[in-house]
Amino acid sequence: MKLEAINLKEKFKKFSDHWSPKVIAEMNDYQFKIAKFKDNFVWHNHKETDEVFLVVKGSMSIEFQDHQVELCEGEMFVVPKGINHKPFAKEECHVLLIEPRGIVNTGEVKTNLTAENDVWV
Amino acid sequence: MKLEAINLKEKFKKFSDHWSPKVIAEMNDYQFKIAKFKDNFVWHNHKETDEVFLVVKGSMSIEFQDHQVELCEGEMFVVPKGINHKPFAKEECHVLLIEPRGIVNTGEVKTNLTAENDVWV
Repeated sequence: MKLEAINLKEKFKKFSDHWSPKVIAEMNDYQFKIAKFKDNFVWHNHKETDEVFLVVKGSMSIEFQDHQVELCEGEMFVVPKGINHKPFAKEECHVLLIEPRGIVNTGEVKTNLTAENDVWV
Repeated sequence: MKLEAINLKEKFKKFSDHWSPKVIAEMNDYQFKIAKFKDNFVWHNHKETDEVFLVVKGSMSIEFQDHQVELCEGEMFVVPKGINHKPFAKEECHVLLIEPRGIVNTGEVKTNLTAENDVWV
């Protein structure tokens, strides 16, 4: 068992790339990942699972087919499985993601924003 | 699909009782619960699952058999399944808990701190 608390701010200092989630903890078969968002991501969905976004710093939005959700610091949102969505952040935004182990950030879409999976920080 | 962000601070304003987790969101078969901790909880464990504590405001500790973990605002900890633990907060602490739906706060121990399950706020 890890004996120390996981400090989110300290973990965010350890990388600078955008849209590239880093795992910081596991709970059963779920992972807690942190990522820095900036500018546009790609439209995608996750057929297998819901996905949680929790904003640790800054603000972001999630665009859906016919509406948009704004998320500020201290706010979270659950994107239901299978629903197309496109995250966006005007300024760099620090986000905690929670989803099952093995989920690829761009779903089934392969682009230059598709990140390597299971990278710990 | 819910169209609005879930604001943690606003949710914490909606109740004042201690050690009584309130559900604010679900992701697959997992629940996000918020609770206010103050003073001692009871020794217990959750045989079925890991459990995540994320401190939103204040600070707390988790006592284990032979050590103790201190958690400040912005820090999280994963208590492994089956491990005895006792949360404590000297001053009121606001905590986000993440665990599967149906988990009772005191595990198999029944006390006056055993909270009703699946209460939403």
